[in-house]
Amino acid sequence: MGRWEPDARGRLERAALTLYGERGFENTTVAEIAERAGLTERTFFRYFTDKREVLFAGAGALQDLLVNAVVDAPPSVTPINAMAVALEAAAAIFDGRRDYSVQRQTVIAANSELQERELIKLARLASALADALRRRGVPDPAASLAAEAGIAVFKIAFERWISESNRGDLSQLIRDSFDQLKAVTAGA
Amino acid sequence: MGRWEPDARGRLERAALTLYGERGFENTTVAEIAERAGLTERTFFRYFTDKREVLFAGAGALQDLLVNAVVDAPPSVTPINAMAVALEAAAAIFDGRRDYSVQRQTVIAANSELQERELIKLARLASALADALRRRGVPDPAASLAAEAGIAVFKIAFERWISESNRGDLSQLIRDSFDQLKAVTAGA
Repeated sequence: MGRWEPDARGRLERAALTLYGERGFENTTVAEIAERAGLTERTFFRYFTDKREVLFAGAGALQDLLVNAVVDAPPSVTPINAMAVALEAAAAIFDGRRDYSVQRQTVIAANSELQERELIKLARLASALADALRRRGVPDPAASLAAEAGIAVFKIAFERWISESNRGDLSQLIRDSFDQLKAVTAGA
Repeated sequence: MGRWEPDARGRLERAALTLYGERGFENTTVAEIAERAGLTERTFFRYFTDKREVLFAGAGALQDLLVNAVVDAPPSVTPINAMAVALEAAAAIFDGRRDYSVQRQTVIAANSELQERELIKLARLASALADALRRRGVPDPAASLAAEAGIAVFKIAFERWISESNRGDLSQLIRDSFDQLKAVTAGA
């Protein structure tokens, strides 16, 4: 066991993101990340399996939060509104993390392997949310459609949040995108 | 230039899919595919860059067909109906190819690299269709939302078509899934 390092995870995340931005994801090593964070490689591997996972370590917590919010929504809530409630709850995770999110998105956009990993993350989220809706008694294909539509809304709201600094907070953009989706599918 | 071989592309596709099913995608070589098809490796590489592309060679034609159908829809057609028209037109590509599609899906489901490639294909389709809607004057985020929703409908209709042999044709399932999406987003 190494000695306890204050906020080791956060320091490693920030060091990694800075280095990926400076020299590219491909050209950054775990040794360099650990050094920049003032920590050892061994400490790095206590938190992350590899340098890619630094960018995706939050995926599990995000998925748990979304799934629990869907499962815990009152029975009277419709499938699409259960998705909306869950995604707005998830938006709170990103409060105060817009700069980090912009940096992360820039790194991902520059690397096709990372883009693929991000697509897989979203596909898994949609699949887990469809399962959560089925546990509420929602039949297929409604469960799958509500989950996929919700993830599409999240993806687009997130891209708007990243690209337009004056557009307000993420939860507002999620609400707005849900409204737009309703208008679009209604034939607007 | 090698001599002309009748239906070389189709023979290579069928040989590849049979071998992927028999021994797994990972354990099949290009040499074996060519041999099974009664052709040479050189002929294989005239049609495909590698053994993975045998499964995705139709992606470009599918994308062109969808994009052209969106661009060519009459101006009065709403964004979501332009997507529906395009996807129903694309369904015709799969007429008489259900057995092939089931086999292909089984191979893809067994290999995570192929699943990733399939997700990328769908993400590119959504992106190309959002562009096509913007060329019709549809603003964002409506263009992106209609495109992502349309691809979600296509994905789910396709999965139903593959998994339920008695559910009718793909274009009927696409229409049905669009109707279900409308009901779901309206709060059913």
